[in-house]
Amino acid sequence: MTVKEVYKDYQKYMDKEITIKGWIRNHRKQKEFGFIDFSDGTCFKHIQVVYENQLKDFEKIQKMHVGSSIEVTGKVVKSQGKQDFEISASEVIMVGDCPEDYPIQPKRHTREFLREQAYLRPRTNLFQAVFRIRSVAAFAIHEYFQKNNYLYVHTPLITTADCEGSDQMFKITTLDLNHLEKDKEKKVDMSNDLFGKLAYITGSGQLHGETFALAFNKIYTFGPTFRTENSNTKTHANEFWMIEPEMAFCDLEELMNVEEEMLKYVIKYVLDNCPDEIDFCDGFVETGLKEKLTKLISSKFTRITHKEVIDILKNSKQKWEFEPSYEDDIAKEHEKYITEYFNGPVFITDWPKDIKAWYMKVNADNKTVAAVDLEVPGAGELMGGSQREEDYNTLQARAKELGVDTEAIEWYMNLRKFGGCVHSGFGMGFERLIMYLTGIENIRDVIPYPRTPGNCDY
Amino acid sequence: MTVKEVYKDYQKYMDKEITIKGWIRNHRKQKEFGFIDFSDGTCFKHIQVVYENQLKDFEKIQKMHVGSSIEVTGKVVKSQGKQDFEISASEVIMVGDCPEDYPIQPKRHTREFLREQAYLRPRTNLFQAVFRIRSVAAFAIHEYFQKNNYLYVHTPLITTADCEGSDQMFKITTLDLNHLEKDKEKKVDMSNDLFGKLAYITGSGQLHGETFALAFNKIYTFGPTFRTENSNTKTHANEFWMIEPEMAFCDLEELMNVEEEMLKYVIKYVLDNCPDEIDFCDGFVETGLKEKLTKLISSKFTRITHKEVIDILKNSKQKWEFEPSYEDDIAKEHEKYITEYFNGPVFITDWPKDIKAWYMKVNADNKTVAAVDLEVPGAGELMGGSQREEDYNTLQARAKELGVDTEAIEWYMNLRKFGGCVHSGFGMGFERLIMYLTGIENIRDVIPYPRTPGNCDY
Repeated sequence: MTVKEVYKDYQKYMDKEITIKGWIRNHRKQKEFGFIDFSDGTCFKHIQVVYENQLKDFEKIQKMHVGSSIEVTGKVVKSQGKQDFEISASEVIMVGDCPEDYPIQPKRHTREFLREQAYLRPRTNLFQAVFRIRSVAAFAIHEYFQKNNYLYVHTPLITTADCEGSDQMFKITTLDLNHLEKDKEKKVDMSNDLFGKLAYITGSGQLHGETFALAFNKIYTFGPTFRTENSNTKTHANEFWMIEPEMAFCDLEELMNVEEEMLKYVIKYVLDNCPDEIDFCDGFVETGLKEKLTKLISSKFTRITHKEVIDILKNSKQKWEFEPSYEDDIAKEHEKYITEYFNGPVFITDWPKDIKAWYMKVNADNKTVAAVDLEVPGAGELMGGSQREEDYNTLQARAKELGVDTEAIEWYMNLRKFGGCVHSGFGMGFERLIMYLTGIENIRDVIPYPRTPGNCDY
Repeated sequence: MTVKEVYKDYQKYMDKEITIKGWIRNHRKQKEFGFIDFSDGTCFKHIQVVYENQLKDFEKIQKMHVGSSIEVTGKVVKSQGKQDFEISASEVIMVGDCPEDYPIQPKRHTREFLREQAYLRPRTNLFQAVFRIRSVAAFAIHEYFQKNNYLYVHTPLITTADCEGSDQMFKITTLDLNHLEKDKEKKVDMSNDLFGKLAYITGSGQLHGETFALAFNKIYTFGPTFRTENSNTKTHANEFWMIEPEMAFCDLEELMNVEEEMLKYVIKYVLDNCPDEIDFCDGFVETGLKEKLTKLISSKFTRITHKEVIDILKNSKQKWEFEPSYEDDIAKEHEKYITEYFNGPVFITDWPKDIKAWYMKVNADNKTVAAVDLEVPGAGELMGGSQREEDYNTLQARAKELGVDTEAIEWYMNLRKFGGCVHSGFGMGFERLIMYLTGIENIRDVIPYPRTPGNCDY
């Protein structure tokens, strides 16, 4: 049976014999007893296994190293320590040995060291917590959207539509890079490649997502995305997961309703289903984490325009590194101030059109677009969304203005011709959410095998 | 409100006024009446909207084309046709027009034609059914594994470990293909690329998955995978989604238990949650589909060795195109015969080691490996799995035998040194499952935007 099952009903197993299989996380040896800190990965909690020198294999067991996999048979008994129970072993069998120089020892390892041991760090408490929360949060997202009748769409990863800016996308090829044939213009001849032309791996599923929203009403994507950004910061990775919902007959107000409801659902689900993991992160990663998350669930998110935000920033009498401006994006320091000012999450709407994407709905003032960023205390921007421009001519004009080639995405443009409607969507970086849920500050520590510039080991 | 909501409780809305937004799928016009076949994509069913010539906009409404998006206000009334109800419209407002030459008309289109209209085909009944089933099946898979305490792991897509055979993987690069610098050996110098070396997009998450299984006990992946295969068949695509569960302390028998239980869970979930979609596929795609699926849920899967299968094939007195052999893989005709012979799904175990992967557990006979393929009636191989070789030296020897370079995956090998254990896993191609669930025979028709050789439009 599993440790999770034992914990769920340990009263029932009291004084009964059970068998568990897992790993030695710590091993304290005394003359008459031994104590094994035992974990099988099925839940955050460990079990203490006690064995006595009356066991015939006592000496053999005492030699078992941290990291070894073992099979333990014994009785569930009341613990003399602070645990609810422990296992009094009648047998401990070595399943898979582990050498004494095993890198993961029961002591504090730095996160930098653990990144270098990426394949072993899931065996530590911190990463048991982080990756369990990641898994549960992913499911909560699926459950929220499915319960609300959204269609889950697998938008393509490989794409030839470079409207997102091909300079930010990885090129893919099956050609031999050492022997590339060139055409008359001395450019590489891609016609021999698998797709007959240059292809990329995508940075967003939004455009494809919109085509499905106009058929299924409400859809979401949840999959990996890629950026070539050569940027070594705590918040950038070259491979990350995104959620991109898209809703037909949905305006900006309704979009914010969805964002707010979804976020609260996911946070509540994680609090309910990962109490031990959250407690651990609260204790060892971000003090006050649990309170922060609990508070968010019952808070009302502020809704305010970009202009109003700039007014507040200008009137604040703060000294800014970056001067707030009605024409510009807001800086990290502004985000921080605004979420503290409202003491909770803030939707900022109606951004200057010049700093936002070409497909966003131009407002009646012809200066701003119906875009919205969600700023949360302590994490900054968590989601970005907009109403999409549904007028064909306006969209064409905007694309031209911003130098977007719409020829390759005629299909996308045509959505505005063939029964178009007001529709909206948003994107949420999944890692950003996990950082918010765990308090972890470096994106490298919420991704199983992070890919960043110069780092693609494992 | 949505069509789904109306259907759920139409008795409650009888004689009440509602407003719905969606698309005209068909439009029949008479002198005194008009009939709009209305769909909003929230469920498979359409609603009939009836409008009379007493409406002031009668003539305007009659001119509305198929494909247009509209907003309808009207009363839910008893239908004079065979429907349970219809809408007697008091107002029909045009939201987004659609030209008369709109490609999707209310008539039978070939699937080949619809593939060329990939962004519009989700608006047809067939693809409403297929992609809803795809979405619901994806959720069922998540739900099954999460309920059973599996950890969902996002294994990396970008990888430098080419143990799966780099000739089958797409290379990715940020370098300018027209200006590649070469090193002293006249090979392309990849050290300037983003990761400092040549990288690929992956064909499997299994190796990374194993590292998490040895920390969390039970894990699964569910994400896109890629193959460069230049093969234009009904069952090959260059981008597809895979589910790869991996369980520690799990042998081949237990692995089969999981495969069987999971498959039954998913099929039952889809039957329960997509009754209209399954009925449609039963009627228009594969006659007997529903019975096939229903039968599978209650059937006991046969478990039989490869040797026993060959015995049966040899004794069958059939004329084979490919002669069955104890040393070889089985052909499509054999799969078909065996599933018909047992009249249900068949697990075939203990395959000749020479035709299977290097990481599979070598059996005591040193001739076979503890691998298992699941064959299902009408679809052939649906899942492939194995116990993994847990002995370090045997694994090294097998890798050497099969020319696998283990240097780049030392971490994978080390799992056998650091508390290893019996562990097993399987892979299921998600598209293969959707083809089985819908009766669709061409993989291009179960993927939103399929990628096959020469085809990467949209």
